[in-house]
Amino acid sequence: MLSIRDPVHGFIRADPFETALVNSRPVQRLRFIRQLGLTNMVYPGAEHSRFSHALGAMELAGRVYDALAAKSDGRLPSEPDCLERRLVRAAALLHDIGHAPFSHSAEELFEQGIDHEEMTRRLLLGNPEIGEIFASRGRGVETSDIVGVLAGGGEGVQRLLAQVISSEIDVDKMDYLLRDSLYCGVRYGNYDAERLLDTMLPIEDQETGDWRIGVDEGGVHALEALVLARYYMFTQVYFNVTGKALELHLSRWLEEEGWRWPSDPEEFLAFDDITVTSRMRGAENFHARAVTAREHFPLVFETDEHLSRAETSAFGDLLPRLRQRFGGENLLESHSAKDPHRFSQGNLLVRMSDGETVTMERASHFIRHLQRIDRYRIYARPEIRGEVADTLRSWWRG
Amino acid sequence: MLSIRDPVHGFIRADPFETALVNSRPVQRLRFIRQLGLTNMVYPGAEHSRFSHALGAMELAGRVYDALAAKSDGRLPSEPDCLERRLVRAAALLHDIGHAPFSHSAEELFEQGIDHEEMTRRLLLGNPEIGEIFASRGRGVETSDIVGVLAGGGEGVQRLLAQVISSEIDVDKMDYLLRDSLYCGVRYGNYDAERLLDTMLPIEDQETGDWRIGVDEGGVHALEALVLARYYMFTQVYFNVTGKALELHLSRWLEEEGWRWPSDPEEFLAFDDITVTSRMRGAENFHARAVTAREHFPLVFETDEHLSRAETSAFGDLLPRLRQRFGGENLLESHSAKDPHRFSQGNLLVRMSDGETVTMERASHFIRHLQRIDRYRIYARPEIRGEVADTLRSWWRG
Amino acid sequence: MLSIRDPVHGFIRADPFETALVNSRPVQRLRFIRQLGLTNMVYPGAEHSRFSHALGAMELAGRVYDALAAKSDGRLPSEPDCLERRLVRAAALLHDIGHAPFSHSAEELFEQGIDHEEMTRRLLLGNPEIGEIFASRGRGVETSDIVGVLAGGGEGVQRLLAQVISSEIDVDKMDYLLRDSLYCGVRYGNYDAERLLDTMLPIEDQETGDWRIGVDEGGVHALEALVLARYYMFTQVYFNVTGKALELHLSRWLEEEGWRWPSDPEEFLAFDDITVTSRMRGAENFHARAVTAREHFPLVFETDEHLSRAETSAFGDLLPRLRQRFGGENLLESHSAKDPHRFSQGNLLVRMSDGETVTMERASHFIRHLQRIDRYRIYARPEIRGEVADTLRSWWRG
Amino acid sequence: MLSIRDPVHGFIRADPFETALVNSRPVQRLRFIRQLGLTNMVYPGAEHSRFSHALGAMELAGRVYDALAAKSDGRLPSEPDCLERRLVRAAALLHDIGHAPFSHSAEELFEQGIDHEEMTRRLLLGNPEIGEIFASRGRGVETSDIVGVLAGGGEGVQRLLAQVISSEIDVDKMDYLLRDSLYCGVRYGNYDAERLLDTMLPIEDQETGDWRIGVDEGGVHALEALVLARYYMFTQVYFNVTGKALELHLSRWLEEEGWRWPSDPEEFLAFDDITVTSRMRGAENFHARAVTAREHFPLVFETDEHLSRAETSAFGDLLPRLRQRFGGENLLESHSAKDPHRFSQGNLLVRMSDGETVTMERASHFIRHLQRIDRYRIYARPEIRGEVADTLRSWWRG
Repeated sequence: MLSIRDPVHGFIRADPFETALVNSRPVQRLRFIRQLGLTNMVYPGAEHSRFSHALGAMELAGRVYDALAAKSDGRLPSEPDCLERRLVRAAALLHDIGHAPFSHSAEELFEQGIDHEEMTRRLLLGNPEIGEIFASRGRGVETSDIVGVLAGGGEGVQRLLAQVISSEIDVDKMDYLLRDSLYCGVRYGNYDAERLLDTMLPIEDQETGDWRIGVDEGGVHALEALVLARYYMFTQVYFNVTGKALELHLSRWLEEEGWRWPSDPEEFLAFDDITVTSRMRGAENFHARAVTAREHFPLVFETDEHLSRAETSAFGDLLPRLRQRFGGENLLESHSAKDPHRFSQGNLLVRMSDGETVTMERASHFIRHLQRIDRYRIYARPEIRGEVADTLRSWWRG
Repeated sequence: MLSIRDPVHGFIRADPFETALVNSRPVQRLRFIRQLGLTNMVYPGAEHSRFSHALGAMELAGRVYDALAAKSDGRLPSEPDCLERRLVRAAALLHDIGHAPFSHSAEELFEQGIDHEEMTRRLLLGNPEIGEIFASRGRGVETSDIVGVLAGGGEGVQRLLAQVISSEIDVDKMDYLLRDSLYCGVRYGNYDAERLLDTMLPIEDQETGDWRIGVDEGGVHALEALVLARYYMFTQVYFNVTGKALELHLSRWLEEEGWRWPSDPEEFLAFDDITVTSRMRGAENFHARAVTAREHFPLVFETDEHLSRAETSAFGDLLPRLRQRFGGENLLESHSAKDPHRFSQGNLLVRMSDGETVTMERASHFIRHLQRIDRYRIYARPEIRGEVADTLRSWWRG
Repeated sequence: MLSIRDPVHGFIRADPFETALVNSRPVQRLRFIRQLGLTNMVYPGAEHSRFSHALGAMELAGRVYDALAAKSDGRLPSEPDCLERRLVRAAALLHDIGHAPFSHSAEELFEQGIDHEEMTRRLLLGNPEIGEIFASRGRGVETSDIVGVLAGGGEGVQRLLAQVISSEIDVDKMDYLLRDSLYCGVRYGNYDAERLLDTMLPIEDQETGDWRIGVDEGGVHALEALVLARYYMFTQVYFNVTGKALELHLSRWLEEEGWRWPSDPEEFLAFDDITVTSRMRGAENFHARAVTAREHFPLVFETDEHLSRAETSAFGDLLPRLRQRFGGENLLESHSAKDPHRFSQGNLLVRMSDGETVTMERASHFIRHLQRIDRYRIYARPEIRGEVADTLRSWWRG
Repeated sequence: MLSIRDPVHGFIRADPFETALVNSRPVQRLRFIRQLGLTNMVYPGAEHSRFSHALGAMELAGRVYDALAAKSDGRLPSEPDCLERRLVRAAALLHDIGHAPFSHSAEELFEQGIDHEEMTRRLLLGNPEIGEIFASRGRGVETSDIVGVLAGGGEGVQRLLAQVISSEIDVDKMDYLLRDSLYCGVRYGNYDAERLLDTMLPIEDQETGDWRIGVDEGGVHALEALVLARYYMFTQVYFNVTGKALELHLSRWLEEEGWRWPSDPEEFLAFDDITVTSRMRGAENFHARAVTAREHFPLVFETDEHLSRAETSAFGDLLPRLRQRFGGENLLESHSAKDPHRFSQGNLLVRMSDGETVTMERASHFIRHLQRIDRYRIYARPEIRGEVADTLRSWWRG
């Protein structure tokens, strides 16, 4: 049993199967992918990698599983060593292995238009080291099971396990909120994980007969708090004005120099933050230097934080004109958009104290009023900042 | 006023002079020097760089200064903006800029036999950007003042400021213990910083007339706790058995490939963890691969943690024979040695409640019994591990 | 300078004037008034008294004052020892001295229909010990100034100081949320105090010319978080279903035995939790025993948590009928009602980054959707619980 | 399953048997016994009772049991619901029910010369409510088993369980150090509980064949840290100079008024802090008023913190003379004495990494140099403080 210290969860323990996975190259590579891309330029503490997040997600997957199993009336086995629990922990550990350098900053550069989730799938099914570990130590857990759980959907128990990894209260969010908060030195992302775990349970959807992760009535406020934690992390940290500027310069450079993340999983493994940073330093490119010297274009205009769909579309329509007037190479455009949650799709259920089941949308009285974050920001070359600002002001509110 | 979030100290604020220093290349370079070298291979959370440590040391320098000034009977001015305070904060911010890649792991590779302290001095006196910032915004603080404070010694106020940066209770230790503990996810390094600050005061050495940082009687236990915190961090984290092995492989590779850290400060700035890691990956060298693949030589023998001087010397004498028998290239030798404190030199004074001044050695009843850490560890190529172990056992205790 | 350790704020320091106040009988009496009445019966850790809250409020008053002074363009003096700062700290320390036993549980038992705020006023103006301390050590601060600040209103600086003590972001809330959370062992009440302090500033109300405490745009989310923290503390802790039941039994007993809190301040000082608890134990009264033995009436019915005004009124109209049918002595009725904030009155201003001033209601996008808490709960003697429940269900939803 | 929030351990869960015990009168009475007697007069946050400590000890007993069971090679069953685990948790919950008012302050006032441990035994064997709960819900656990475990000694498994409750690393210390630290607002008592639990294991004593709680080599420093935590809590908090003075006045009053704690368990239950405080307020007695008004005798003399046995005896010999000269009624004498640990009796074993078993005394290099705390303090009536001080100074060092 490997014991690993973690600043967020204390001790994280891994059995021999998990230990082998932790030591595999695809997971070790995550040590060199910063969880928050360039955010550490703004929050200096945020130097953590996806590697510790992967460990944290695995730890939480075990705890969530135990919480669900305890209230599943036998639907989920409760032995610490059962197949379902090992499956969901492994899935959590491996859910991010397909991430490109700088995490989300340059997702669109994959060859063949794939994304990090498809790359995760390819690594799971194609990486020989991973394959060998499952074959020799998986004791019934197979890579295709992991792929199934990560794909979402499915039925019965699999559907439930899939939601542990990806849903409105998945272990990905549960871990990154706590972890990013701690490392950034902010409190926005803190919510009451213990209380939330205490109230999670599997709920049968009356209409479809499917089982889903839900909370009991006592967990509504804890879940609201998680949603708010995420909302604040997006507005304050993930969509930070300086962080976004640096990320845009990074993307511009990668684009101008024709970077592509290989679609072949073995080739892909060679790419991480180090590879990119190392090349960026030698680059003559203007945008590469903007990142390395932290001399980014200044912000010249930003819209309200909560544009309506119509406003988003209207502002989007201004962009071609803007580029035409000032030259696309002199501008950076950021569009930060995020729904605070997806409860409107009725996908989270609450078991009320009288036994009735309602949607979270109905159970929570203000969460539906959290507005979608939808904001454009325009940065421009310093020499023309005033001019661009004036133009946008006259176009947008004139 | 720049406000920076920090996981350890909350908000850290920097005035325009300090902000310019923070933004300078020598300080920004610290973002790419991990505070704990390869320790994150063992404690995955320990991904923090010397950059946040530098900010934390600056913050603490201000707090220590304020604590001393409040009890200095006017010897130290107490205005937040006074020259002495700005000086000591800048010194703390800059005290580590000469660190080589991977911090302490490869200190001996400097050209001309210099060390990181000499490099810090050269950057302070030679880097044009630093020079310009002091000239234009230093308002009386000069780079030579910083060099003086970092050099230690001096007289009167300067001597006191020097001890804020380097002494038995300096801001370097005060910050790194808290920071390394937090990021490693351990508690060993936690001590009561607030209580310690509350009890710090300048004390006049009766014999020499010099002023030194000391504590009042109520601070003796808080200071003991800091010493113990450091002691445990060394035994559990800094001298960790796996971390040391990786560090030795790293050194061996750097040595075999003839790496040298330039003694010229401008050339030096190009070297950091990224430069080295990036080259290490491409290297065919056995030891480079040992680090990147984390396949280090196993530990085959370690001495007691607290060798006497005679034992240390005796064990040292075995090493040439050992290398001769098994080949130096098949062995790694680690010698971890650290005094828990240097109170025996009478260099920390305690003001007792009756006004008397005694040395910390006398005031503290068990701290002098903390034994010096002094331990050899031998790692060997797996194929010969048993043989080396047997040989050492027969030589050492036979 | 007295240094006091505090679990919430670390060290709290008191100058000789404040120390004398802390040691006075009216403040020491607060040691025997639990901050949360009977809540420790539900959250066992919540054994803290109003005494530590008073110290914490004093500490925060100094910090809020400093934050405001730093951004007041000289309107507020910034010396640590200025009269305004000493005044507002003393006001915070003393703001609760008129509290009756068990804090809010039995506020209505004051003679002459006064409340705890009027009692605070009487103690300030009438208690000889307090008077003497102000006279001999107040250095210009007078008890009438404190009364003025506690009364609210006023003009100019006084109005600003009054808001430090009582407003939507006063030190009372700021302290009790952190303190109650810590002692209860919950996280609901945690908000980012440091960030909030960092963004507080005095803002001139354009219409009236008055100065008020506000936040800059960067503080909107921190303030939302404080509002939510309070909201959750009310729903989860302060209006806890069991805590409320015990409180109602306590009130019923106090009423049945004809308790009255003296309106004379000197007589009043003799009453605290000990006096009452001690008598309660000897009492033959049914309700007294319900509290001491924790055998409260069970909950038989509760309304939705967010009744509309009309619903509140409608439910209120059922109560006389209910009492008539089952006997008032067999029922306990709780009406928990709280507005999440009072921003609708335009009483908190936000300074936007473009210099404009808007109300918090406009600056915050979801806070206005936090619904008023307004809920009835009916508890009944065990023997008739089913019958009462059925009756209410048929009356209320039929 | 009852879930209780706790500031130290998060959620504490109790099964129906434990819930019934928690609700019993002997356990509920602990709500009115402050854990630290009058210490809250010095550390205002320390208002916590033995009730939360009892819950915390129960929680830790489960965790320690699980840690031991996991490494017991089947010697201890590992089912969450096994008899041994239920037994040790119940023993931890009940271990303090015999405590007199103000905890340790007035232990010597029991009738018949019994102590709180004997009273605990009497309550366990004699209290009908406790008896009934064990009979109806104990499922094999009997009150005599608890008495056996609390008595210590025994053989085999019982001996091991006894050490969970009382030994050098028992759950009593483990809980009170964390709890008292938190509530006092100090850090002295913090140690790494998680690490310690991780390293605990049952070790067979080679000589006697008995099983004992020990730690593996990796736990030596964690255990040292616990010992130091306790040491600092004694020197800084439990033996605080002001706290001791108040406690001595309390004892003096209780003595002068002839208080006795009944030796009959049912009568005993009526006595707690409320009973005593309530009577103290009405008392005309000088010492009672010293406590209530916090006007204690000032300290006039204290010896070194670490008297030798000979010095202790010599100082003790001065006391009769002192009383004769100044009158015992004008003096308070405190003798604070505590061994930092009892490792010298070889009663804690360490399993080294090579499988060898050594005593903690041998494994830890400085812990044996922690000096016994042994200090006299003399307080005197203010009018004669100078005279008493002079006398003692001349007698003691003259």
